[in-house]
Amino acid sequence: MRIIVDAYGGDHAPKEILLGCVQAMEELNIELALSGDAGKIRAAAQELGIAEQVAKMEIFDCPDVLTMEDEPTSLLREKSQSSMAVGFQALAEGKGEAFASAGNSGALVVGATTIAKRIKGVKRVSFAPLLPKSQGFFMLSDGGANVDCRPEMLLQFGIMGSEYMRKVMGIENPRVGLANVGSETHKGDALRQEAYALLKSCSTIHFVGNVEAREIPYDAADVVVADGFTGNMMLKLYEGVAMAVMDKIKGVFQKSLFNKLAAGMVYQDLKALKKSMDYNEYGGAPIMGASKPVYKIHGSAKAGTVKNALRLTRDYVSSGIIEEISGALGKARD
Amino acid sequence: MRIIVDAYGGDHAPKEILLGCVQAMEELNIELALSGDAGKIRAAAQELGIAEQVAKMEIFDCPDVLTMEDEPTSLLREKSQSSMAVGFQALAEGKGEAFASAGNSGALVVGATTIAKRIKGVKRVSFAPLLPKSQGFFMLSDGGANVDCRPEMLLQFGIMGSEYMRKVMGIENPRVGLANVGSETHKGDALRQEAYALLKSCSTIHFVGNVEAREIPYDAADVVVADGFTGNMMLKLYEGVAMAVMDKIKGVFQKSLFNKLAAGMVYQDLKALKKSMDYNEYGGAPIMGASKPVYKIHGSAKAGTVKNALRLTRDYVSSGIIEEISGALGKARD
Repeated sequence: MRIIVDAYGGDHAPKEILLGCVQAMEELNIELALSGDAGKIRAAAQELGIAEQVAKMEIFDCPDVLTMEDEPTSLLREKSQSSMAVGFQALAEGKGEAFASAGNSGALVVGATTIAKRIKGVKRVSFAPLLPKSQGFFMLSDGGANVDCRPEMLLQFGIMGSEYMRKVMGIENPRVGLANVGSETHKGDALRQEAYALLKSCSTIHFVGNVEAREIPYDAADVVVADGFTGNMMLKLYEGVAMAVMDKIKGVFQKSLFNKLAAGMVYQDLKALKKSMDYNEYGGAPIMGASKPVYKIHGSAKAGTVKNALRLTRDYVSSGIIEEISGALGKARD
Repeated sequence: MRIIVDAYGGDHAPKEILLGCVQAMEELNIELALSGDAGKIRAAAQELGIAEQVAKMEIFDCPDVLTMEDEPTSLLREKSQSSMAVGFQALAEGKGEAFASAGNSGALVVGATTIAKRIKGVKRVSFAPLLPKSQGFFMLSDGGANVDCRPEMLLQFGIMGSEYMRKVMGIENPRVGLANVGSETHKGDALRQEAYALLKSCSTIHFVGNVEAREIPYDAADVVVADGFTGNMMLKLYEGVAMAVMDKIKGVFQKSLFNKLAAGMVYQDLKALKKSMDYNEYGGAPIMGASKPVYKIHGSAKAGTVKNALRLTRDYVSSGIIEEISGALGKARD
């Protein structure tokens, strides 16, 4: 299996991306290819002492970079020679079986839709991060690709998420919940009410009804379905609140020498806790609904997170989920 | 000043409500009246040893209770003899200057709209909880009263929230932010884009633009404007994530005797931290836009929280904010 990696996406590109790629190549039994400025990539690899390993990766040479400030659709126009665009083109041409990038999420969604193309029958691709809950992780779909959604799109997000959690994450009968303002059937706006009816009548998923936001961190569902506006607010609030609380805890522990001593006593356990809540552990978010696996690596990913993301990208490929989704959508229509 | 309190609203009614009322009466220099079953209220007061103090409160006697399971609009029909409905009627008849209840939020919104009535010019009342941020608190408006919103409603939520934070919470020039999926001007759906333009052109508020959910716990704004669907998701996720993280921390501290020892060392500081993040400290949420102050006490409020909420209800009355809002909305229209 060969995965194409955007060497110039993310806050710590290219160095942490390259280091992560080398780790992944050595540990995960995968072949890698890179997109980006070949000269610069080779120079960075030299500097990091990984020139030999990087030399094993084909480089799709291109001069440009699509930044966080660029418009997502610039991928198709002025940034068509960027590392992301060229990576997508290589994917479309079959030069690899998946594409992973830590770059601009919006542009990745554009590329997944227009270059990788959607799976037949999929109305919209979804940006679907995995987030920590009291036990394990859940998929939030859509986490921000589509600010305006129709009910059928939410149904598809549920079906695709269910397939992913089953085939890639190994959850036998994933619980699909609809993010809503109350647990009762009639709750929410027209979009929620119509989506509820569609999800409820879909025989290929295990729909557990509406889930309130308060319950989501407490293992309410394995797949949480939302429109992209609400989902993006939830995703970012999830991160923000967890970080703010952890910062406050840190403040307590640094308050005095005595408190620092107490912190030292539970250091290992706090570190393990932080890891269990860290969504870098799962490396990012698959783009669901593209006809070839596209994976968004967390923007601030360092080498370890890049490697984790590439493991999940590999699992995404080997799961055969894309064919499954096509079938599951067909069944839902029947 | 006289505040009417729903003696039968909330998880711990009537006992904790009565205890909180007695504390409030003794500490806050306010007169109180109660709505609910007079016989039961007197019996509970007797049992709690506060019969003498409760005897000073007029009771609007009524047999019924509106529960969390009741439809909000039942307030106007089958539950018109509930403690909440009768409390609202007493407010409308001028038997008190404000009404506070820990009962069903939806029904409180119905009562604020149809019995207390809206301030002239206000399109919809808003459920506007105060939530902790890195420094102090911010108002989230709307936190769930209106699942479908038009742009003008979001403008009004911003204006009303700004007045509240200035006059009741003493913040000189409250920063009003629009909850959105990105900070750039053009971000979000049509509702957000139109609301942005309205908020931006409003000269009576200090609009700081779009705020991303990640920044909200970090003091991004004093008033966060949202439609009621998004706001409710945010409110509940805010609580859920903070609780889940605190639970995990608690788990670390209870893991071993050694860890318990460490916890003991920072106990006072952790307790202070918990208090700083506890939105019970601010007792609940004003209903903004009603022509008389209506205050939602947190549903799980115990006596101390009830007292805090009644302090804020008192401040809501004495701030004269309702006249201010009327003026501010007028100016915004000009």
